[in-house]
Amino acid sequence: MYKVFGDILSGNCYKIKLLMQFLDIEHEWVHVDILTSETHTEEFKRMNPNARIPVIELGDGKYLWESNAILNYLAESTEFLPQEKYKKAKVLQWQFFEQYSHEPYIATARYINKYLGLPKEREAEYHAKQIGGHKALSVMEKHLVENQFFLGASATIADISLYAYTHVADEGGFDLSEYVNIQRWFRDFESIPGYIKMTRGNA
Amino acid sequence: MYKVFGDILSGNCYKIKLLMQFLDIEHEWVHVDILTSETHTEEFKRMNPNARIPVIELGDGKYLWESNAILNYLAESTEFLPQEKYKKAKVLQWQFFEQYSHEPYIATARYINKYLGLPKEREAEYHAKQIGGHKALSVMEKHLVENQFFLGASATIADISLYAYTHVADEGGFDLSEYVNIQRWFRDFESIPGYIKMTRGNA
Ligand SMILES: N[C@@H](CCC(=O)N[C@@H](CS)C(=O)NCC(=O)O)C(=O)O
Ligand SMILES: N[C@@H](CCC(=O)N[C@@H](CS)C(=O)NCC(=O)O)C(=O)O
Repeated sequence: MYKVFGDILSGNCYKIKLLMQFLDIEHEWVHVDILTSETHTEEFKRMNPNARIPVIELGDGKYLWESNAILNYLAESTEFLPQEKYKKAKVLQWQFFEQYSHEPYIATARYINKYLGLPKEREAEYHAKQIGGHKALSVMEKHLVENQFFLGASATIADISLYAYTHVADEGGFDLSEYVNIQRWFRDFESIPGYIKMTRGNA
Repeated sequence: MYKVFGDILSGNCYKIKLLMQFLDIEHEWVHVDILTSETHTEEFKRMNPNARIPVIELGDGKYLWESNAILNYLAESTEFLPQEKYKKAKVLQWQFFEQYSHEPYIATARYINKYLGLPKEREAEYHAKQIGGHKALSVMEKHLVENQFFLGASATIADISLYAYTHVADEGGFDLSEYVNIQRWFRDFESIPGYIKMTRGNA
């Protein structure tokens, strides 16, 4: 059975939980606390030398880290990952966009605000993150005018990757009220059978 | 014929050039200058709404952006991308590591230093980038003790992704002399048939 090391309140970990729910994949969830540096023990770093969650244990001593790599592994041959070459590459395109142009702004602003309580010495950084975050949200909003999900008519792991932190962007100070297509997409995403909220009780 | 929009001196664009050389893929290279905002025209943003290079035009009005997504597209069914599910996911793991834990430190420090000439107002940021950059280099160094390339005995697109900015990390102020395994890996990588240097004349 798969073992997932993570914290469901971290969007990167919640991604894995969502896909496992959608696909009904049996797994054990091991809670890891990043605030007490549980990711920095020698034991943890043997699983992921980069000292981050999520990590998945696949069995036979095999581990995989990086949330979006884990999603691709689990989604292979399912309806959440198209087989066709161009579509599959488009899924990756949106996932790399998420990790490079979205998460470092929106997830980091949320972390500074929600986890650290917006300390004085990180206020400037917090405000700087708003610009990049809104830039990413605008790219998404525009794409969703003509697309129900990121790849078209049905949800893929690209939607899971982008939903994870976008749906809690308000916790990072982002007002989403003007992004009407993103809000419509939230509703469609939350209608996928198996959907669960990002709460500790659901881990 | 493929058309690539990029600047070979940008590591993210050089990645595409390298793979195309290794696989002998015919293409046209269209130079795009980011310093004069050529990525911010309406015409460019129709190809990539996120306003970044590289972008590839695949024909039939199809475009793909995000360097690592492009690599996955071009490498499919070649020796640069393993078919086996776990190995393929490991390639992605290292590519997401590159985009999240490596490039934002090493490429950004290089950009501030080489392109902007280390202006006073970005000095603090430049110095802060050194820490994250060395953390990423240490993860790589350790992995390369027991692995010739990132996935083992032969080079994959994970090596291309990581080589692009690591081999010019000195331009971002990173002294690589203590990373002996990374240097050994440079030599192995540079022996791949078709290898070319990152110079404008090679674009
Ligand atoms: N690119 C990674 C990011 C993972 C990541 O940054 N995880 C955070 C929690 S959301 C973490 O483990 N932080 C601990 C630390 O930085 O010490 C992924 O997508 O999995
Ligand atoms: N995650 C993207 C990053 C691309 C990127 O940031 N490209 C830079 C050049 S290296 C760019 O176009 N910058 C222009 C700008 O930010 O205005 C990828 O891997 O393709």
